[in-house]
Amino acid sequence: MTQYFSRRNLDFLLHEVFSVSELTRYPYFEAHDKETFAMVLDSVTQIADNHMYPYFRDVDRNQPELRDGKVTVHPQMKPFLRAMGEAGLIGAGFSFENGGQQLPELVNACAGYILTAANNGMMYTALTSGAANLINTFGTLELKQQYVEKLLSGHWQGTMALTEPQAGSSLSDITTTGEPQEDGSYLIRGQKVFISAGDHDAVDNVIHLMLVRIKGAPRGTKGISLFVVPKYRIEADGSLTDNDVTSTGLYHKMGQKGTPALHLTMGERGDCRGWLVGEPNRGLSYMFQMMNEARIGVGMTGAAIASAAYYASLQYARERPQSRRLNEKNQLDSPQITIIHHPDVKRMLLFQKAIVEGSLSLLMESARLSDLVHVSEGEEKENYSLLLDLLTPIAKTFPTEMGVRSVSEGMQVLGGYGYTEDFPLEQMYRDIRITTIYEGTTTIQSQDLLGRKMTIKGGKAPQLLFQEIEKTLREADTHDELKPYADLLRKELGRVQDVTMALLPYAQQGDFERFLMDATLYMELFGIVTVAWQWLKQGVAARKAQLTQNPEGDEATFYESKLHTMKYYFHYEVPKTKGLAARLKDTEVLTIASDREVVM
Amino acid sequence: MTQYFSRRNLDFLLHEVFSVSELTRYPYFEAHDKETFAMVLDSVTQIADNHMYPYFRDVDRNQPELRDGKVTVHPQMKPFLRAMGEAGLIGAGFSFENGGQQLPELVNACAGYILTAANNGMMYTALTSGAANLINTFGTLELKQQYVEKLLSGHWQGTMALTEPQAGSSLSDITTTGEPQEDGSYLIRGQKVFISAGDHDAVDNVIHLMLVRIKGAPRGTKGISLFVVPKYRIEADGSLTDNDVTSTGLYHKMGQKGTPALHLTMGERGDCRGWLVGEPNRGLSYMFQMMNEARIGVGMTGAAIASAAYYASLQYARERPQSRRLNEKNQLDSPQITIIHHPDVKRMLLFQKAIVEGSLSLLMESARLSDLVHVSEGEEKENYSLLLDLLTPIAKTFPTEMGVRSVSEGMQVLGGYGYTEDFPLEQMYRDIRITTIYEGTTTIQSQDLLGRKMTIKGGKAPQLLFQEIEKTLREADTHDELKPYADLLRKELGRVQDVTMALLPYAQQGDFERFLMDATLYMELFGIVTVAWQWLKQGVAARKAQLTQNPEGDEATFYESKLHTMKYYFHYEVPKTKGLAARLKDTEVLTIASDREVVM
Repeated sequence: MTQYFSRRNLDFLLHEVFSVSELTRYPYFEAHDKETFAMVLDSVTQIADNHMYPYFRDVDRNQPELRDGKVTVHPQMKPFLRAMGEAGLIGAGFSFENGGQQLPELVNACAGYILTAANNGMMYTALTSGAANLINTFGTLELKQQYVEKLLSGHWQGTMALTEPQAGSSLSDITTTGEPQEDGSYLIRGQKVFISAGDHDAVDNVIHLMLVRIKGAPRGTKGISLFVVPKYRIEADGSLTDNDVTSTGLYHKMGQKGTPALHLTMGERGDCRGWLVGEPNRGLSYMFQMMNEARIGVGMTGAAIASAAYYASLQYARERPQSRRLNEKNQLDSPQITIIHHPDVKRMLLFQKAIVEGSLSLLMESARLSDLVHVSEGEEKENYSLLLDLLTPIAKTFPTEMGVRSVSEGMQVLGGYGYTEDFPLEQMYRDIRITTIYEGTTTIQSQDLLGRKMTIKGGKAPQLLFQEIEKTLREADTHDELKPYADLLRKELGRVQDVTMALLPYAQQGDFERFLMDATLYMELFGIVTVAWQWLKQGVAARKAQLTQNPEGDEATFYESKLHTMKYYFHYEVPKTKGLAARLKDTEVLTIASDREVVM
Repeated sequence: MTQYFSRRNLDFLLHEVFSVSELTRYPYFEAHDKETFAMVLDSVTQIADNHMYPYFRDVDRNQPELRDGKVTVHPQMKPFLRAMGEAGLIGAGFSFENGGQQLPELVNACAGYILTAANNGMMYTALTSGAANLINTFGTLELKQQYVEKLLSGHWQGTMALTEPQAGSSLSDITTTGEPQEDGSYLIRGQKVFISAGDHDAVDNVIHLMLVRIKGAPRGTKGISLFVVPKYRIEADGSLTDNDVTSTGLYHKMGQKGTPALHLTMGERGDCRGWLVGEPNRGLSYMFQMMNEARIGVGMTGAAIASAAYYASLQYARERPQSRRLNEKNQLDSPQITIIHHPDVKRMLLFQKAIVEGSLSLLMESARLSDLVHVSEGEEKENYSLLLDLLTPIAKTFPTEMGVRSVSEGMQVLGGYGYTEDFPLEQMYRDIRITTIYEGTTTIQSQDLLGRKMTIKGGKAPQLLFQEIEKTLREADTHDELKPYADLLRKELGRVQDVTMALLPYAQQGDFERFLMDATLYMELFGIVTVAWQWLKQGVAARKAQLTQNPEGDEATFYESKLHTMKYYFHYEVPKTKGLAARLKDTEVLTIASDREVVM
């Protein structure tokens, strides 16, 4: 089997960079230790190896079908969902009380990484887990009792049903309506589009966590409520009745073909019922809990696909002979060398490794923060929360935008072969492309970062971030090999602050259009610098290990390669900030159109 | 029908930027004038509209098949090839004597652009034209008489058969052999892979222009000869006999599915004959004539697909309502605006337009140079030749590398819809990705640019280029609106020279590995600056038209948009050179491995 992730690297991040053992000192996580974490990752790897990775091509080649209103998916989905349910992995991060294992998100994120790297076309369980989490957090006891166990066992599917034909990035324009009934339920009417795993035959029921406007609710985002809308509703006697949710269309997508994306119509027969979750008109804020997790999950999908692509192209580069060294071009008698020895191939591989491991580190940083939010209180909790909120749009965007490029370089390493279906790169290239679009496009994430996260509470979130980074800088300063990189990062932080100062006055003047005009470039700049921090952090951990453990053999290579890749990131990726900052401080306005017809 | 290219822009480039009428002053082109050019483009557009564009999706969905050694392609290929043959478009650029129309390459390039933008999966005729051109230029009178007419009429297919399983980027390792026979033919044995249009049922014969090593020839590139190897050979009585070229494999590709890519085996029965073209052992230099054209052709494919994607996303952005202006977020009563009014969408569209029209301009510059090489003599010819040689790897790389990103931004404009098969973007995204790989990968082009074109004849080629650019700068200096951009470009030229000076010493020391280590980044830098020159050139032409023609309505918009897009390019794209130059001058070596195992 080709390698698709590095367990060694996960262990490095878990234990040496993010010290997961510090979390187990909190009572909430005290049932866990290094062994239970290893067991979870072993059991996840087993499922990934047996139920997912072998079907990577097959789920792409045998797409879901919609016939006579029924959606059939690849036959492997059912045993996979059951295996995940039986292993207790669908809600592993939930509290014991809610049917989970109280597993830290830091470890849960590693599990998601492994599963997604094995086969990103089988994303069903993450959706189920998110839906169950919403019911657990905001639902009544009755809703919990009715739905959660079935969801976590893998017998029922959960979904996030937000998007409508006219309401994609603009959720305030949702029109699906709910009309209160005497029995406490609501009559639901409307349409939802792009609903992932929105219907299929590997489960017995599908539970939609749906955004709906209750009749008479205020306009805009303040009139949106969250509902449970099942495919089959549960009658008083426990039996299931068809709930008038119809699959009216199946999208044919470029990639991630294993998971069906559906167009759903609710209430064609006037008999679709939904049950309110939490209070009326607060649905969007509830959903955002799930969306923030989902955004980090999508970032993880980007990192995971890029990981699988990296190892596939690394293997190819180690095996494929072609040409001779540039300094030995004319030695025709000598055999061809393997292409990993060509500097430009090495560069492409280092780029991939730098993106994959830098992204993963950022995602685990976010996961650790969400654990700390969970177990801390008061001001500490608020600070962790602010930091997590700030990192979330970056953790969604950097791994996906750069992941797309990373997989593309992976394909380039294989040359013409990479473009054929004989190698997995072409599928990974198709699969990863959606990640910069769903769960909020890069534009939306960028506006969230600059327009919201940088400014709320008087800019406290970036202050907290810079304090965190300062800790890493001070550690790095104590190592001669790392000090130059700490100095580089300090300069880059100054650059980010400069740019931010140049932009903030527009917000203060109320000109948000000008303020956010180049938000996507601001995101790119901020992402590069944030991941430079993650690389320095990894560099510190690697250097410490070299000094204290005196590693040999593969272990020595592992740490050497970590430091080498950190250097690659600083020497090749970080300089891109120069051009971005220049543009961001440039005052020429070219993308804000006057009211008349836009000139193109 | 959705627009897939802009005829107005082609006319602008042809007449206002590149003054095609200057070419018709040369006797070789004197049969042509503005009217004949318009007629050619009209007739090309008709074929593109009727025979190609309507089948864009269909040729992707109904791929070629290989069964029992026979390759079947989409039924539309046959009428398309006949129509191209009948219109005299396959060899339109050939001399009258060789069956062509002596059409300037500048116009021929526009024709290729239109055809490819309409449907890049139907690239058969460019291959045929290249093969016929090689026979015309280097073949005997007998070979010409046997093959050229049938090729140009669209009844026979031509191919370029270079790549072998062990010889992709490294052509010196070709092993297909030719053994001289008494009748003057050669017995051919070997295998070729990735042969585009290498066999199919829309033609009666396939003529391979094949690189072969004659038994006993010197090693390496100096022992490679060019052969005509037909699928059916022509007997003395004019009848056709199976020539033992077997289709042993058909590649399943991510895109460009309309054109089959084949694995061919020659001489399975020991009965495959080939005929030498030109002198023995000079095949690679002959093939390079065709390859240089093909490289520019691939650049054109990149620009053309990016063009079709640009217009598709522009149309969507003009029609799709979503959200409100950032400064009017809370005005929920107001209707949604079309997304073209959102700055980030406008930015993505301007990026696409800047890449498409900048690339096209560079490609037409190259085409004009190839016309000038054709009609000039002595030192003038040599200078044009040097300039064309310098621009060729850039004209292959910029439009393809940036084209990939441009199509990706096009998909992003459509959001989730762009990822579905309901819109053409997903296919364009798949189609364009091969262009940075075939006809020499970006790595190969970059090593050619820095390692060869920058240094031959004491660096005369870049000197000539800077002289050409200087002409544009001096023109731009005379317009107040353009002078700042001329100054910017001057600074960028200085940056390129700086970087070049920093790298050349490695070449002088004979350390080509270090010299070329980051050649791909050097290419990126050089490409950005070269296209900045093309944009300034277009800016000058547009400004002149504004001053002299006093344009109104659509015409005024056209020129305004040209200048606006030029500004976009300078303000958003050009700053990227800062980071590239910083990396290229950085002395840290990270991609040259020592002799021991490469650390990854």
